[in-house]
Amino acid sequence: MGEFELIERYFRRPVVRNVLGVGDDCALLQPRAGQQLAVSTDLLVEGRHFLSTVDPARLGHKSLAVNLSDLAACGAEPLAFTLSLSLPQVDETWLAGFARGLFALAEAHGCELVGGDTTRGPLTVGITVFGEVPAGQALLRSGARAGDDIWVSGTLGDARLALEAFRGTQSVPAPVFELARQRMELPAPRVALGMALRGIASAAVDISDGLCGDLGHVLARSGVGARVEAELARPLLAAAREGLVLPPEQQLALVMAGGDDYELVFTAPAAQRDAVAAAGRAGATPVTRIGTIEAEPGLRMVDAQGRVRDAAYASFDHFR
Amino acid sequence: MGEFELIERYFRRPVVRNVLGVGDDCALLQPRAGQQLAVSTDLLVEGRHFLSTVDPARLGHKSLAVNLSDLAACGAEPLAFTLSLSLPQVDETWLAGFARGLFALAEAHGCELVGGDTTRGPLTVGITVFGEVPAGQALLRSGARAGDDIWVSGTLGDARLALEAFRGTQSVPAPVFELARQRMELPAPRVALGMALRGIASAAVDISDGLCGDLGHVLARSGVGARVEAELARPLLAAAREGLVLPPEQQLALVMAGGDDYELVFTAPAAQRDAVAAAGRAGATPVTRIGTIEAEPGLRMVDAQGRVRDAAYASFDHFR
Repeated sequence: MGEFELIERYFRRPVVRNVLGVGDDCALLQPRAGQQLAVSTDLLVEGRHFLSTVDPARLGHKSLAVNLSDLAACGAEPLAFTLSLSLPQVDETWLAGFARGLFALAEAHGCELVGGDTTRGPLTVGITVFGEVPAGQALLRSGARAGDDIWVSGTLGDARLALEAFRGTQSVPAPVFELARQRMELPAPRVALGMALRGIASAAVDISDGLCGDLGHVLARSGVGARVEAELARPLLAAAREGLVLPPEQQLALVMAGGDDYELVFTAPAAQRDAVAAAGRAGATPVTRIGTIEAEPGLRMVDAQGRVRDAAYASFDHFR
Repeated sequence: MGEFELIERYFRRPVVRNVLGVGDDCALLQPRAGQQLAVSTDLLVEGRHFLSTVDPARLGHKSLAVNLSDLAACGAEPLAFTLSLSLPQVDETWLAGFARGLFALAEAHGCELVGGDTTRGPLTVGITVFGEVPAGQALLRSGARAGDDIWVSGTLGDARLALEAFRGTQSVPAPVFELARQRMELPAPRVALGMALRGIASAAVDISDGLCGDLGHVLARSGVGARVEAELARPLLAAAREGLVLPPEQQLALVMAGGDDYELVFTAPAAQRDAVAAAGRAGATPVTRIGTIEAEPGLRMVDAQGRVRDAAYASFDHFR
């Protein structure tokens, strides 16, 4: 099967929003009046971002989900995406599964494939995603102010728990493993929450490298520090809610630095607590307050007695 | 060196046109009123699209050039791009060279880096490029009509000649090899020509997979056929102009199906010949008329006596 036939068979979809579909040299997009185009790109490499044994439908889902998560962090509404696929061989069963998972999530978010590129090579998935956000309303990393609450969406640390179980470094009962694996392989991008937080959140970022590291980007760009309460963060591990018992320090480390969560961490003035709760309901996503922005730079973890703990949680960095 | 430090050191540039620079979850772009956003994406894989020995500055140039070539084929003006980089290791000399070649071309076209992603993995370069084109004025593949002239820009076949020389299947004198190698490693995207052809060309495509295959896309989308004159096409091999003597059939095959040329093939009504010549001058790019669009489907090659030759030139297809 040739490159063009492959595109035709697996990736051709009716054109809805963009002017031209897959097939011309460029796709043509026109944001509506008063809207800015939010753009993000991610490259997923076999063995680094996904296991070679992953179900292709789940990989299709996750490849788009991690990009939609970037739109969510900006409060943007998904519009379109391009797909670059490098494949070691043409495996039709694999391609059909990948396309099924990809388009199921794309269609759920009204996000259409407008262009792409396929080639032979190491298994690699590159997606660039486009969303719309009213001019001036995008959520940025730079808006956190001292006194703001720090919030996170959903649950944290379970994707890393699943990875450690796959690696054999952590033993996990089967039902908990399935939950954790689903968090790793089928992350739910918090698009509706991000859009609902426009005008409410002062800063936002999505958690791909770990809460500690990604919150660190907000702190750096905003020129502030943070105090996170261990007793509020630790219970965010969904596996613990399902009965998995881990040493408290290990559980906290998974939450703070696990990575691959694709939840949002965001800040908002304390006066907006009701509005944040309403945004969580609008986005059908639990939100939890875990700390406070402070003027003093750095991230401080405090215990139940309010004492600053001596602990560093490094972000999962792809080049370390 | 960590991922974020790597981005900071090699890929941070002052922000000009977009609202946010590299570093937030999304870049924000706002096309000017009345403009559409043209989007294209390409993934370059080591061993498939470039040799492992290529000079990193030339690879940086080519990675962006092949994307700008897609904008050229649409008549779009470059605006911005995102970069996804998968690297087997952090090699600072390599990165500095890659960034130098990349940004030299980007700055020459006023095209700024607005986002990206770096990871460890097989050497892979993914770029998505954005351009602006006045609404309704994009050059498409679907506009060729019977009677239109068929034109190509620049010279063709030399990149493939260099590849064959690298492979050892073709012996080429050193000065000719340098010329051919430059065509392979430093293609010049025909952006100014593409913009000058707005309102003049009836259809256009860039030549990445070979003239025959890419012109074939125009024919298929336009529902027409073509007659190409061998005597007009064959001299397009620059190496032949430099004195390289090849069997005529082999020379023609390089021109028709060599690939990796990043020239434009476009059609225009015969009444536009002066306008096409003026666009060539405006774009500082030679243009050559090589044939005619016909109502009958298919691509026919005719000899100096106007006889249809029996020859098929397959496009270079990445999955064959």
